[in-house]
Amino acid sequence: MSRLTIALDAMGGDFGPCVTVPAALQALASNPALNIKLVGNPSDIQPHLNQCDSTILERLQLIPAELMVANDAKPSQAIRNSRGTSMRIALELLKEGEAQACVSAGNTGALMGLAKMMLKPLDGIDRPALVTALPNQKGGKTLLLDLGANVECDSDMLVQFAIMGAVMAEEILQINNPRVALLNIGEEETKGLDNIQAAAAILRNVQQINYIGYLEGNDLLTGETDVLVCDGFVGNVTLKTLEGVVRVFLSLLSSGKRKRLWWMKLISYWFKKSLSKRFGHLNPDRYNGACLLGLRSSVIKSHGAANQQAFTVAIEQAVQAVERQVPTQIAARLQAVLPKSE
Amino acid sequence: MSRLTIALDAMGGDFGPCVTVPAALQALASNPALNIKLVGNPSDIQPHLNQCDSTILERLQLIPAELMVANDAKPSQAIRNSRGTSMRIALELLKEGEAQACVSAGNTGALMGLAKMMLKPLDGIDRPALVTALPNQKGGKTLLLDLGANVECDSDMLVQFAIMGAVMAEEILQINNPRVALLNIGEEETKGLDNIQAAAAILRNVQQINYIGYLEGNDLLTGETDVLVCDGFVGNVTLKTLEGVVRVFLSLLSSGKRKRLWWMKLISYWFKKSLSKRFGHLNPDRYNGACLLGLRSSVIKSHGAANQQAFTVAIEQAVQAVERQVPTQIAARLQAVLPKSE
Repeated sequence: MSRLTIALDAMGGDFGPCVTVPAALQALASNPALNIKLVGNPSDIQPHLNQCDSTILERLQLIPAELMVANDAKPSQAIRNSRGTSMRIALELLKEGEAQACVSAGNTGALMGLAKMMLKPLDGIDRPALVTALPNQKGGKTLLLDLGANVECDSDMLVQFAIMGAVMAEEILQINNPRVALLNIGEEETKGLDNIQAAAAILRNVQQINYIGYLEGNDLLTGETDVLVCDGFVGNVTLKTLEGVVRVFLSLLSSGKRKRLWWMKLISYWFKKSLSKRFGHLNPDRYNGACLLGLRSSVIKSHGAANQQAFTVAIEQAVQAVERQVPTQIAARLQAVLPKSE
Repeated sequence: MSRLTIALDAMGGDFGPCVTVPAALQALASNPALNIKLVGNPSDIQPHLNQCDSTILERLQLIPAELMVANDAKPSQAIRNSRGTSMRIALELLKEGEAQACVSAGNTGALMGLAKMMLKPLDGIDRPALVTALPNQKGGKTLLLDLGANVECDSDMLVQFAIMGAVMAEEILQINNPRVALLNIGEEETKGLDNIQAAAAILRNVQQINYIGYLEGNDLLTGETDVLVCDGFVGNVTLKTLEGVVRVFLSLLSSGKRKRLWWMKLISYWFKKSLSKRFGHLNPDRYNGACLLGLRSSVIKSHGAANQQAFTVAIEQAVQAVERQVPTQIAARLQAVLPKSE
């Protein structure tokens, strides 16, 4: 196996192979070191490969899978019936060392559950967490985790999330000594829930983490921190609130209804385009791909509705996670910070 | 006492009497039935009254208070040292029946704490909740509660919030049979935290509430529901996330830096103004005023940074709460829904 092989669930997402296969070919074309194992129904995938250059096809391997996890299936049920599905086979490739990362746009709950069940967590990690990089006002990015892998978290888990986030900020965002904050409802030490206060007490004493204290929801996009840590319930609601508000704005931008003269329409079009460009970095499609951290290999969840460009971004995230050896780096940092952890 | 008297903490907020007194005069001028008791330091307030019409001054009573709660004081400390402050004296007027509602732009934690301590909760209410009306995409409003009065909530509290929200939607927003949803991380029944699932099980069997199920963060502004219920931690983070994102957009709107010809600047100005108008209803200043529900009188918390217009909106909210007898209506509904509640 090449040292850079990604397993791709070709059947997941709203559009399946129509999006995932062209995205895979695009990623292969732009990165000559990359190999992809495409898992799915050959008869659905093959038509998208006909026109493809042979130098690219050499690095693409088709792994047949006859079944797929339904996007709307209950996660528990989907996991029970997952044998033979493209999602599960893609994860099995990780487990067997045939690939170093996996990308899927399929059923989120099923992917999280299957990944946790099949891939071992790193030593010192109780539960893996889902993280994404949000664009901030200062032109940088802020990592937000957990986004919903764990609806309830104790203080130890929040500390582990902080460590994983810090390593990812260093390795993927290339931020030196990244700032880490806990999401809370006020900045005073006495604010918030017990688990958050207990996590803060631990983080204040961890030398290897640049812990800066509590931040509030309105700091999500201000760039006040590089890593923002919360439990999965709060993270999920926060991310979805953010996405909902951004979509309202983008829809308002294109919703003018008044009658205008042709030159006003032209100017209006030009101006909206320039504004859309300026707001564009906040569009959820642009930061597609959440990473499940804390396992021995990286699993990237793409938005189900991702288009080709967005799905390519998710594949590139997986490539970065492999190249920068994120799991290994996290394991090393955990050893340094929590030497006696279970 | 007139039947419509509002006690006003004139000293609270970032600007104190500079904002609160002109706002009080504006509210009095537009509502001839309104009486206001203005609580604060007479020497700070008097200069703002000099030019005022005598027919308005007749309905304004100045209640001296020499002290004030510092905006940045720790709530617990502020409450201990609250005797003689404008905030506390305003709440005492409520307690003694000298006013039916209170408005303050002062220290949120202190106001919530003092109000809960001094004013009795309604029968059937364990803890009061903070609620605000957010503008939604359908041109209506969605009530979100709790916004932070209670960081932890059991299922009974969530049910009580749902009932209070439904009554407020009927009485204040004039919505017939308002839809009530619980904020969660997925729409399936099995999703989310135990307290939310338990609250859902209760609400499904309450005839008097039009419970429609779970909604997610991205539905905050879509108008899918009239009332959205969550615990105070999640509500606070959600509201602040929303406000943060809106402020980023509004700042992006006015941040263009490229050099342009004069006529392009003119068109750009005209276009930005029209967009700001269209986005304006999402500006946090426009929906100023969160209401503490569940007490025998209404307490309205204004944003600390409210300007005169925004503070007037908060006073008008208090007037509405009194006119529509929100506390009495909530008490009646509670009796009907939870006859055997403690």
